[in-house]
Amino acid sequence: MKFLKKILEEVKPSEEEVRELKEVANKVIDKIKEFSDNSVLEVLHLGSSARNTNLKNDFDIDIFVLFDKSLSIEELERKGLELGKKALESLGGSYVISYASHPYVKGKLGKYNIDIVPCYKIEFGEKIISAVDRTPLHHKFLVERLNEKLCDEVRLLKAFLKSLNIYGSDVKTKGFSGYLCELLILKYGSFLNLLQDAQNWRLRKVIILDDIYKIYENPKFKEFDDPLIVYDPTDLNRNVASPLSKENFCKFVYYSWLFLSEPKEEFFYNYHKRLEEELNEREHGFIVKLEFPKEEVDDIVYPQLEKLEKSINKHIIKNDFVPIRSKCYTTDNYCYIEWEFLVYELPNVKVIEGPPIFAKERVKSFIRKHKKTFVKDCKLCCYEERKYKNVLELFKDILNKKVPIAKTKHISLEKGKLIWSQVQ
Amino acid sequence: MKFLKKILEEVKPSEEEVRELKEVANKVIDKIKEFSDNSVLEVLHLGSSARNTNLKNDFDIDIFVLFDKSLSIEELERKGLELGKKALESLGGSYVISYASHPYVKGKLGKYNIDIVPCYKIEFGEKIISAVDRTPLHHKFLVERLNEKLCDEVRLLKAFLKSLNIYGSDVKTKGFSGYLCELLILKYGSFLNLLQDAQNWRLRKVIILDDIYKIYENPKFKEFDDPLIVYDPTDLNRNVASPLSKENFCKFVYYSWLFLSEPKEEFFYNYHKRLEEELNEREHGFIVKLEFPKEEVDDIVYPQLEKLEKSINKHIIKNDFVPIRSKCYTTDNYCYIEWEFLVYELPNVKVIEGPPIFAKERVKSFIRKHKKTFVKDCKLCCYEERKYKNVLELFKDILNKKVPIAKTKHISLEKGKLIWSQVQ
Repeated sequence: MKFLKKILEEVKPSEEEVRELKEVANKVIDKIKEFSDNSVLEVLHLGSSARNTNLKNDFDIDIFVLFDKSLSIEELERKGLELGKKALESLGGSYVISYASHPYVKGKLGKYNIDIVPCYKIEFGEKIISAVDRTPLHHKFLVERLNEKLCDEVRLLKAFLKSLNIYGSDVKTKGFSGYLCELLILKYGSFLNLLQDAQNWRLRKVIILDDIYKIYENPKFKEFDDPLIVYDPTDLNRNVASPLSKENFCKFVYYSWLFLSEPKEEFFYNYHKRLEEELNEREHGFIVKLEFPKEEVDDIVYPQLEKLEKSINKHIIKNDFVPIRSKCYTTDNYCYIEWEFLVYELPNVKVIEGPPIFAKERVKSFIRKHKKTFVKDCKLCCYEERKYKNVLELFKDILNKKVPIAKTKHISLEKGKLIWSQVQ
Repeated sequence: MKFLKKILEEVKPSEEEVRELKEVANKVIDKIKEFSDNSVLEVLHLGSSARNTNLKNDFDIDIFVLFDKSLSIEELERKGLELGKKALESLGGSYVISYASHPYVKGKLGKYNIDIVPCYKIEFGEKIISAVDRTPLHHKFLVERLNEKLCDEVRLLKAFLKSLNIYGSDVKTKGFSGYLCELLILKYGSFLNLLQDAQNWRLRKVIILDDIYKIYENPKFKEFDDPLIVYDPTDLNRNVASPLSKENFCKFVYYSWLFLSEPKEEFFYNYHKRLEEELNEREHGFIVKLEFPKEEVDDIVYPQLEKLEKSINKHIIKNDFVPIRSKCYTTDNYCYIEWEFLVYELPNVKVIEGPPIFAKERVKSFIRKHKKTFVKDCKLCCYEERKYKNVLELFKDILNKKVPIAKTKHISLEKGKLIWSQVQ
């Protein structure tokens, strides 16, 4: 596959880029060290840019400040933020305070995005205190094993996944994390080897790195009910692939097969976008959207949108309307849930299927509850008036909170706007 | 249940009526005997009017001419018709030739409908030659066992079934034959006893008359897969209840229970009509009818209409339209199949669900056949253009024979007329 070389050239940062990024990282590290007291044991440049597995035009620099375990979590947070702020200020950068498992400094220095994250320094096999304490261990594990060739294979994989829109373990993407990509390449040796195997994966595929047997004497593997299970070599109780959705697992398996059966460059160039455009070139059903003001970042808003979508879908189906698809998405200022309907209008009449006529007790209570009963297919049935003849009536009642919908903290139905259009 | 006495009075023929009918029957019998040669062994008045189990205003007289078994079937038919014609002519009646298993004379004498049916005289346990040879045996079995009281119970049962529209074993009604009613009363002793038991019947209910064990030394019961199985005491290979549909069996069980739990006179007065009217007082879906000229009698036309209905329903469902109900009916000159639709209009777009992405061979052939494929719920799917956006387009193609529909001998699609109305 000759074109892979070309792809790699396009996605790999130049030596110039790499050197410049390293310089910036070191400058930040030096500054942090300058302001540190002896509770700071190490300051490290971690993440893909530190391991040479990042893609071109990725200007993310992760700096981890490793504190002594004797420090309280409050002290760690306070000191971590202070060091981050001071370092960025003195270098002329800007920053905001962001929250993951604990607060950290999200800075900007020229074109570089610099995260300064405090954590505890722990050793291999030790229990973590904060969720990010594992990151230095991940880095150590990887740098000891990745060489230049493997790093390039990681980049190809990332580019492939990105083009399929399944790269990233955030709640919106539900795809492959960078760390997962690196582990997969360690396991299979190359991008193509991975795909060769992946095309035959089945749900609940389990991957165990050989190194795990070298590190642990009697490795105990926790059971996971995920589509893909890749044990974290630094913690066997953790599945690195747990954020990957079943849907995206299937996409990876399918497109691995499709790519191998007819390798084409186009798989690396925004494949999902072009697929979506192609799929969208068709007559549409009735489109209904709910629009909400976006009051939080994607990471917080997406799970709530999906919860809402699921809850509303139940009512759509209960009322006999038929969606062809539904999806959530956000823009800078708004969140959307969108439906396309096959059936959005129905006559008033509804048949309710009751119990088999042989089940006397249930028949009795059915007769008590319903009028106009009749026997059909050995069951007692009845006609009833439909509550919603048009799906828009249902949506209006949803926004007016007349329908019991799952509660969401950062999306309020009363702020929702109903948008619809027959033809797109 | 006092009102049962009143009901019985209303449905039982007067003594006057009975005497007059018997006189007419005897007159016909005498005439037939007058014209008979010695191949005629007996001439009998059979059927419910002969057994005193008929309802008021039922003027049907069945006269059976029993021939010697040595006669050929052609001779039997010829002689049977000749005798019937002659007898009716000489009495000043009219007639037509009708066909059941073989031709017979269907006559009219004043208000009386007189069937003159030739058959072979056979004995109990002997093999029948023509299908109607059993009738004299049925009659013999019944008259030996029915008394005045039981005959009245049969009448109550018939009236109840008639009101529910499940009396009659013709292909249109698919209900209880008169003979079946008489056997059921023999078994249970009374109308109410029967209902008491019937309310707890389950599908494949088996009923064996005690007399069968007296008649046969080692009775062998054939297995039947019918909702109700009542062995014919004159032929254990025959299920008297075989024409009864599952639907009507369930109706009988259900309405037996409903009647007993709240006995009301209204169950005897056209109950099904009033139920239907009540059910019809509602908003309707989109109604579509196919109208065909009626070229044959109900007995011939109904099974064909139902075959057509079934075949068309397959296409309706295949094309994603949703009927709420469908039915066949006839008038004097026309046959109809009628549908009421919940969903009769759809957008152009259709999602076709393909194989699971793991089934490579099926995936390959799906890709060959379809464009615009995508992964959804672990399956390969695609969008396709719908052939029919409105169900009327489908019906037009059906009438134009562009859709493969089951062939029917006496209903031709090209003579069909499409009728529709949104509101009734």
